[in-house]
Amino acid sequence: MMPHAIKAEPLTRSAFAPFGDTIDMANIAPKHINQGFADRFDGLANVDVAAGGGAVNVSLFHARPRPAPIDILLMERHPLGSQLFVPMQDRPWLVLVCADPLDASSYRAFWASGAQGVNYARNVWHHPLLVLDAESRFLIVDRVGPGNNLEEIELDESQRLTLQL
Amino acid sequence: MMPHAIKAEPLTRSAFAPFGDTIDMANIAPKHINQGFADRFDGLANVDVAAGGGAVNVSLFHARPRPAPIDILLMERHPLGSQLFVPMQDRPWLVLVCADPLDASSYRAFWASGAQGVNYARNVWHHPLLVLDAESRFLIVDRVGPGNNLEEIELDESQRLTLQL
Repeated sequence: MMPHAIKAEPLTRSAFAPFGDTIDMANIAPKHINQGFADRFDGLANVDVAAGGGAVNVSLFHARPRPAPIDILLMERHPLGSQLFVPMQDRPWLVLVCADPLDASSYRAFWASGAQGVNYARNVWHHPLLVLDAESRFLIVDRVGPGNNLEEIELDESQRLTLQL
Repeated sequence: MMPHAIKAEPLTRSAFAPFGDTIDMANIAPKHINQGFADRFDGLANVDVAAGGGAVNVSLFHARPRPAPIDILLMERHPLGSQLFVPMQDRPWLVLVCADPLDASSYRAFWASGAQGVNYARNVWHHPLLVLDAESRFLIVDRVGPGNNLEEIELDESQRLTLQL
């Protein structure tokens, strides 16, 4: 059986809205600050990490690309906190989310530019970080605190999906 | 009178410690995550924004370079919250801080690489964002909420400083 193929679409705020926040400058009116030397685009993400005694955790991820074609073997979600990813090298990367890991038709894949980040809302199923370049760094803003904040679902052969680039 | 010149030094965690956190991977033991496809460097910044009913604010800044030589005309600080800056294009930028804006000997300037961010601690005097390239984007994590969270000091002619690149 051929695996179900998911085709990536461009990341836009409206398309990604069911899954969380898009961190980019599109369609936001900036404030002009710093004596005219900067524009500020405010209020881009709902950092939702206080549940169960949680606090903000700031991390860096150093990620490596997966062999192509990318087979989707598992999905994960965080029941206690949002999780924000912003790229640090102005190169495109990939975002894969779904409403239900066992429903192939519920998957959405997005091309993010190097100027775009995302903030997965609590409980949104997403794939671990997907990068295209060998040296890829991301800033992460998520939750630290007590409780189990990770759920994973492994997909078996009959549910196997492939990400089409 | 020649203005006092400040020379930039490389940004390191220990040198910057009196002013806040350095967001980089140096000297941090990562966790290996994502089925071996990423390393995670955790707990890099103290996001200190809850004072006076504050919450986390996520923003993007789009910054433009200032004419060289860079004259230091004002310094600012945030009494109610930390402020984190992470670059999004892997190009060097500049960090300028001081203990007392009116004491020229208390200034420190740092070259940050494109893989380094900083988190200014509450009440740390710093210069507005200083970039070297025309198209510079940064992710900012700071405070939104009631109260006055900005103090500025303008430097007059006799206190004027220049940043030496």
